[in-house]
Amino acid sequence: MLKEAIFHRPKNNFAYAYNKDTLHIMIQTKKDDVKKVELIYGDPYEWENGKWLTESIVMEKKASTSSYDFWKGSVKPPFHRLRYAFRCSDKKETVILTELGFYQELPQDIANYFCFPYIHEIDVFNAPDWVKNTVWYQIFPERFANGDSALNPVNTLPWGSAEPSPGNFFGGDFQGILNNLDYLVDLGINGIYFTPIFKASSNHKYDTIDYLEIDPQFGDKVIFRKLVRECHRRGIRVMLDAVFNHSGYHFAPFQDVLEKQEKSKYKDWFHAWNFPIVHKPKPNYDTFGFVHTMPKLNTKNPEVKAYLLKVAKYWVEEFDIDGWRLDVANEVDHTFWREFRKVVKSVKSDVYILGEVWHDSMPWLKGDQFDAVMNYPFTKAAIDFFAKQSIGTQKFAESITSLLYMYPENINEVSFNLLGSHDTARILTTANGDKRKIRMLFLFQLSFIGTPCIYYGDEIGMTGDNDPGCRGCMVWDREKQDTELYFFIKQLIALRRTDELFGNQADFRFLDINEKGCIIYEKRLVNRRLIFILNNSDSILRIPTNKLNFNNSRIIEWIFSKGEKLQKEEKKVRKGTKMKVPDLSFRIFEETMQ
Amino acid sequence: MLKEAIFHRPKNNFAYAYNKDTLHIMIQTKKDDVKKVELIYGDPYEWENGKWLTESIVMEKKASTSSYDFWKGSVKPPFHRLRYAFRCSDKKETVILTELGFYQELPQDIANYFCFPYIHEIDVFNAPDWVKNTVWYQIFPERFANGDSALNPVNTLPWGSAEPSPGNFFGGDFQGILNNLDYLVDLGINGIYFTPIFKASSNHKYDTIDYLEIDPQFGDKVIFRKLVRECHRRGIRVMLDAVFNHSGYHFAPFQDVLEKQEKSKYKDWFHAWNFPIVHKPKPNYDTFGFVHTMPKLNTKNPEVKAYLLKVAKYWVEEFDIDGWRLDVANEVDHTFWREFRKVVKSVKSDVYILGEVWHDSMPWLKGDQFDAVMNYPFTKAAIDFFAKQSIGTQKFAESITSLLYMYPENINEVSFNLLGSHDTARILTTANGDKRKIRMLFLFQLSFIGTPCIYYGDEIGMTGDNDPGCRGCMVWDREKQDTELYFFIKQLIALRRTDELFGNQADFRFLDINEKGCIIYEKRLVNRRLIFILNNSDSILRIPTNKLNFNNSRIIEWIFSKGEKLQKEEKKVRKGTKMKVPDLSFRIFEETMQ
Repeated sequence: MLKEAIFHRPKNNFAYAYNKDTLHIMIQTKKDDVKKVELIYGDPYEWENGKWLTESIVMEKKASTSSYDFWKGSVKPPFHRLRYAFRCSDKKETVILTELGFYQELPQDIANYFCFPYIHEIDVFNAPDWVKNTVWYQIFPERFANGDSALNPVNTLPWGSAEPSPGNFFGGDFQGILNNLDYLVDLGINGIYFTPIFKASSNHKYDTIDYLEIDPQFGDKVIFRKLVRECHRRGIRVMLDAVFNHSGYHFAPFQDVLEKQEKSKYKDWFHAWNFPIVHKPKPNYDTFGFVHTMPKLNTKNPEVKAYLLKVAKYWVEEFDIDGWRLDVANEVDHTFWREFRKVVKSVKSDVYILGEVWHDSMPWLKGDQFDAVMNYPFTKAAIDFFAKQSIGTQKFAESITSLLYMYPENINEVSFNLLGSHDTARILTTANGDKRKIRMLFLFQLSFIGTPCIYYGDEIGMTGDNDPGCRGCMVWDREKQDTELYFFIKQLIALRRTDELFGNQADFRFLDINEKGCIIYEKRLVNRRLIFILNNSDSILRIPTNKLNFNNSRIIEWIFSKGEKLQKEEKKVRKGTKMKVPDLSFRIFEETMQ
Repeated sequence: MLKEAIFHRPKNNFAYAYNKDTLHIMIQTKKDDVKKVELIYGDPYEWENGKWLTESIVMEKKASTSSYDFWKGSVKPPFHRLRYAFRCSDKKETVILTELGFYQELPQDIANYFCFPYIHEIDVFNAPDWVKNTVWYQIFPERFANGDSALNPVNTLPWGSAEPSPGNFFGGDFQGILNNLDYLVDLGINGIYFTPIFKASSNHKYDTIDYLEIDPQFGDKVIFRKLVRECHRRGIRVMLDAVFNHSGYHFAPFQDVLEKQEKSKYKDWFHAWNFPIVHKPKPNYDTFGFVHTMPKLNTKNPEVKAYLLKVAKYWVEEFDIDGWRLDVANEVDHTFWREFRKVVKSVKSDVYILGEVWHDSMPWLKGDQFDAVMNYPFTKAAIDFFAKQSIGTQKFAESITSLLYMYPENINEVSFNLLGSHDTARILTTANGDKRKIRMLFLFQLSFIGTPCIYYGDEIGMTGDNDPGCRGCMVWDREKQDTELYFFIKQLIALRRTDELFGNQADFRFLDINEKGCIIYEKRLVNRRLIFILNNSDSILRIPTNKLNFNNSRIIEWIFSKGEKLQKEEKKVRKGTKMKVPDLSFRIFEETMQ
């Protein structure tokens, strides 16, 4: 047994409270090395005749990467306390893993055992329930629809008349969004993530001038209030974007520092290295990246904290928004985010707090800071595999499996899974215009665990390269929209929102990744399962039915029509036969177990 | 290369801010498998001609267990941001470890790299500086000294006239402590940890009746204030014990619940499963263990929280205490402890917060909760090796090394290292009365990294089995005190407090653990080192001098005299010779490097 590969450490993805009564315990072993893992556990205070009382369960091997197997077990400790160890067996030996290392026998001394001392409901990771059933739509307000030309900034170009550039304007506004809400209702989404709407200079508005004002090019507070209300009336949640890592150059306190320098009462609102502050050759103050127009805010300064927390509270309290997406969230201190969470949740307990963190985010997802992060590692794996075909099935499955097991299950359920955003090239462009790849991307995204987000226009086949290319004007001309893609995505969204097996409640696992360019995965609930075969290769494949683990001879195939309605066809499966799957295409089967 | 054994994950012991400018990065590889590890790193925003600018350092192999090597590197990122990867080489291959797995070449995509997004001073683990230079003395007030017989509880027994029992009283009090402060000054300690002093029924006072009152058997607030002042006057810090996990049975709110049951306004102060609450056959409310007289406090109830935080603040604000030791701290919610820290540090920023956690404590030591935990894993390893001889040198070094590398360095520096307490048998009893073992235990404890604590009376050779045996009356009769042991410990304490090489500032590592029952370790600063040879075997050993890594031919031997003063003798070391170390004895050498 390769003991050096065995890993467990409590209170992260390896041992966590799934809810107020249930602990999930996980252990990692070298792939295909250990045959059986048992969890030995007990309440630390239950003793009889000098002997500690323990129970055990067999852990389930949930998934594997090329390096590791992941085993998981679930326990409901009656008194909310747990001490535990693992009994790992292969053909040759059985060893006990404790917090103090490996033993041949269960140690007598309870001090050896791993400890989850107490499940406290207040500490349990607790994202809003509604997020699990939400399909998001990301709107970049300047580019979604121009509904009120009176608000157009100077030099506004006619809608769609030019390629998006870092500096041009097309006059998108709230009235435009209001005018098109029914489009979104028809598509089926039930959450909108707006990139920033506060007063700012640029077209992207990430350079905030005033966090308490709406940018006049979008409208005013009256129409924003109406927009939130109209969204809510349609069952659509609203998430805003907060840029708290840095302000814009024209933020009044920064301007005051530029003017009065060390005498400014805002001099400690930023991170000046010395005075006078200058920005040539390089800024002598902390910035976002090295962008001198984006001075980093000093979030440990109590005044700055009070101001930003007022902002956080204001938009929830006054406008009833449902979520905050936090820009460059990883570069702001944890202390600030803990207070942010407390303040925001005290006003509205089920606000969704979504951090922009592109890497391993466990330190922000302990229940005291964010509810989720923008799942860019998911994006990367999906794009590399489906759109670029730059990685194979093994690497793709490895990335997705690693991602699923690096976080607790209750975190995965609300992870913000995106295929693209205002910060990436559009997927259709990345996929070289191949719509077949786009269909598989959306199918995978919308059948996966998490809360999916569609970047405006991707659903009708818009293209665009990296920023600014990906920020084009939404195409409203029906003739120029890909309605076939639209209907396909509409069906996927409907499935996700109506069938819990397709959505977030089911267990996901890869069944097979050994066919060239083809992945097979299943979603499973107690007595139903869906089997997805995604042939991402350029050849027709014939998949042996034994790879699909059917229990019955009768199954249902799901067929996406060109119209709005999914068709279900009954199929007979004979043993030893093969399923034909065309190139760059997929098939989905549903099985009900007796 | 055994890639499955390689482990790194940011923001715990593997990557942490040591101070506001410095990151420590660590990686674990299989023992003796990898020859060289380089840390490749850069600021995520420093690019030139489309290429990310990186630097690299060679990491140092700091220590090994039987399974792993631990490599460490230190970086000061100029803009406080870091992305990084590891280049690991053995004889056959070189691989790059990134957050997204192993690569043959450095990946182009920065998204692959591990990330420590920003060092924020406010998030850095920040225990009080004074703790690193403190030697603690634990006092169990009922048993230290009886200075005011007028306060004696009913049935108080004459001092030391009987074995300690769960229920007897000897009348120890604050006046007794005041009378003997100069004894403690002579010994050299500069911190006292008092087990509970608040109003309670038992002799141990862990069953609090009133958190805002001194137990009348110890004195009143006037004399307690005097005690703190007199300690401070002598440079001695004062730490109190807070039992916030549960109250005593006679705590007024619990009595109110017993009386009024569901109608009590305190009904949500505890965890009643239903009403009426009963305690037979088992309590129908949460308790400490299954002890019905210790009802668990509901620390998520805002009223309870407010009450306990008032208590926490009161004793700091009104009596200027310097530390809180938190009983059963692991069973109280993290949310509570975060607020506790904020409140206590807002009153006095350098209060030491010490949690009672017997197991892996990383989740409490992230900077937002405790400054340290009671280091019982240290205790266990030291006792098993020195006192019981139940583990060998390998296992001992393995335990100590694992412990050192499971936490960040700034955490280790303030870890509360004890050899025994009111909850364990006295070390002399565990060591079957062998004082030679006790000397080595103290030598190891007082030369190790952390903040050591001496349990009252251990320094004069008191004995006593597990609770209640270990809670005997302090022996004040000089004739019955082991003054030789006392002087030895006094010398150790003096060394710790005056020589930074002996104390907390130096780097600790094992030099050799291969001689039977003998460990050799060094403490090292830039140009001085101490070499400790502890022969814990029953035979005389002759240690080859090449195991001691001397750089010079002249070294100083430290010899503990029977009196108060350490003697230093110059020695000449010839190559190829051996050092004789008697059984159950030790030698210490000091070397100054040119």
